[in-house]
Amino acid sequence: MPSRIISVIGGADSNPEILKLAEDIGAEIAKRGVALACGGMMGVMEASCRGAKEHGGVTIGILPSDSKEHANDYVDFAIPTGLGYSRNFIVAKTGDAVIAIDGSAGTLSEIAIAWFSDKVIVALASSGGWAEKLAGTQIDERRTDIVFSADSPKEALDIIFKELNWE
Amino acid sequence: MPSRIISVIGGADSNPEILKLAEDIGAEIAKRGVALACGGMMGVMEASCRGAKEHGGVTIGILPSDSKEHANDYVDFAIPTGLGYSRNFIVAKTGDAVIAIDGSAGTLSEIAIAWFSDKVIVALASSGGWAEKLAGTQIDERRTDIVFSADSPKEALDIIFKELNWE
Amino acid sequence: MPSRIISVIGGADSNPEILKLAEDIGAEIAKRGVALACGGMMGVMEASCRGAKEHGGVTIGILPSDSKEHANDYVDFAIPTGLGYSRNFIVAKTGDAVIAIDGSAGTLSEIAIAWFSDKVIVALASSGGWAEKLAGTQIDERRTDIVFSADSPKEALDIIFKELNWE
Amino acid sequence: MPSRIISVIGGADSNPEILKLAEDIGAEIAKRGVALACGGMMGVMEASCRGAKEHGGVTIGILPSDSKEHANDYVDFAIPTGLGYSRNFIVAKTGDAVIAIDGSAGTLSEIAIAWFSDKVIVALASSGGWAEKLAGTQIDERRTDIVFSADSPKEALDIIFKELNWE
Repeated sequence: MPSRIISVIGGADSNPEILKLAEDIGAEIAKRGVALACGGMMGVMEASCRGAKEHGGVTIGILPSDSKEHANDYVDFAIPTGLGYSRNFIVAKTGDAVIAIDGSAGTLSEIAIAWFSDKVIVALASSGGWAEKLAGTQIDERRTDIVFSADSPKEALDIIFKELNWE
Repeated sequence: MPSRIISVIGGADSNPEILKLAEDIGAEIAKRGVALACGGMMGVMEASCRGAKEHGGVTIGILPSDSKEHANDYVDFAIPTGLGYSRNFIVAKTGDAVIAIDGSAGTLSEIAIAWFSDKVIVALASSGGWAEKLAGTQIDERRTDIVFSADSPKEALDIIFKELNWE
Repeated sequence: MPSRIISVIGGADSNPEILKLAEDIGAEIAKRGVALACGGMMGVMEASCRGAKEHGGVTIGILPSDSKEHANDYVDFAIPTGLGYSRNFIVAKTGDAVIAIDGSAGTLSEIAIAWFSDKVIVALASSGGWAEKLAGTQIDERRTDIVFSADSPKEALDIIFKELNWE
Repeated sequence: MPSRIISVIGGADSNPEILKLAEDIGAEIAKRGVALACGGMMGVMEASCRGAKEHGGVTIGILPSDSKEHANDYVDFAIPTGLGYSRNFIVAKTGDAVIAIDGSAGTLSEIAIAWFSDKVIVALASSGGWAEKLAGTQIDERRTDIVFSADSPKEALDIIFKELNWE
């Protein structure tokens, strides 16, 4: 079985409070023995990678450009797709689950893609942006599942482990 | 200059009333001498292509599969991308502007992509789904532009022609 | 049924003699009532589009960038994929058949993709580059089909019409 | 700096002798402390991953489908792109260098992509298929670089380390 992976998605220019939350998410993912995937760039992406690396985790950065030099300093494995922002699809698909923090249109596209790819999605409830707007809601009213809402990194991981029957 | 193109995005399983609206959108696009691009499949995509063809328009279907046989009957030029739903990026980018009707998670991803690709986006106000939810709103609060809201195909096209300085 | 499309692939910096051949290919495609797809840029792509437009044809340019401004002047419908050179896949898949003229590594990737996508491939025999090297050969020795070799635009189109049972 | 990665490309249905060579390549990559990327499927891809895992290496499988279940048993990190064989682009770009063994049209497309992406390419000289055909040749005669030819896994890695100034 390939390694468990959680994708972290969110804003490239979030404020310090949100970045601290992203770092804590990365740390919690690493402590649970799960690899972290993200878009490999700045903001929430960089902060979550840093948190994971500080706790011995593994990080995968799925880049829009075709140069690894655009990866943040905490990316272990850089995937330089050369696809531009179409790489958002791969970010959303690479995680067994997706955690959303803050975020604007790019993050919104990733949440939507994760939804129709049937991923478990957890949004941090007080993190602002599209994560906060969609926490606890349905993307598609014809389905019964929701974007889960979590108040903390621990709760986000608890939800994912429960939904995916991870132990 | 390449031909003007408007992308129509929306649900694959909308109700008859919405499909009639999609057909009218396709007709209005054709009457104005603009080509129509869409995902090439069923529902809003097929209805809008049919409307365009009934009024002498040109239609482009950007398919997820790598077989042209999956195109609806009203597609003139089928682009079988083989990219799966990553083709949503190309649908959103091919239009000089995007018109959204109804729609679930797939349409939401296309609206988000169109937004960060700086396209003019018009949502049909009473068409249900994500088009209705986002009509008149901002996707990104740090920007001043909005998803335009239109009450009719004519109004949708009027907005696009004004915003793009088309005559 | 969607329109018949032939993709023309080849070098971006071919010499005048090759460009004249590309123009003649475009003209022959247009005269036969088939649409022409290509990468939308310079060299063989531009010359073949010009030939098609001079004979009333329709041209589709599948661009690597996400801006239509990069299309050559003879593209009717620009598809700004934003995928970089991954768009080569879409160029190879959009044609019902592919004609190769001259060409370096980019063209080689497109011939290989067209091959494993089971397209009819015709290479112009004396056009140089990878088209000339592969004309009349098998890409995969475990299969019986070959890259067809043609000495003229007319012969290239004759082969395609015969292989696809077009009339 | 992100981890060093070498992409291994080659046939999905090679014979046992070639698979043993692929396994040895994977082992040599692992012994040198480099991660291995590949298409994540069968044949040369699986054999090279197995060789890497038997020597404590790390493996990345970049899959055409959107399901990790299609990865071979020796993939650590599965990237389910959902892009079909357009994922070949990402395989070729993810490696700092590319090693080719045997291979048909898919491998040919990856060699061509690696070439125009300016990757160091090493082909195993007696491995059959396109690797053997292109070993020691130029893909583009207007450039001076070549597809390097190696007679053994050790020589392949020596070439890469020298060309990339790795120590």
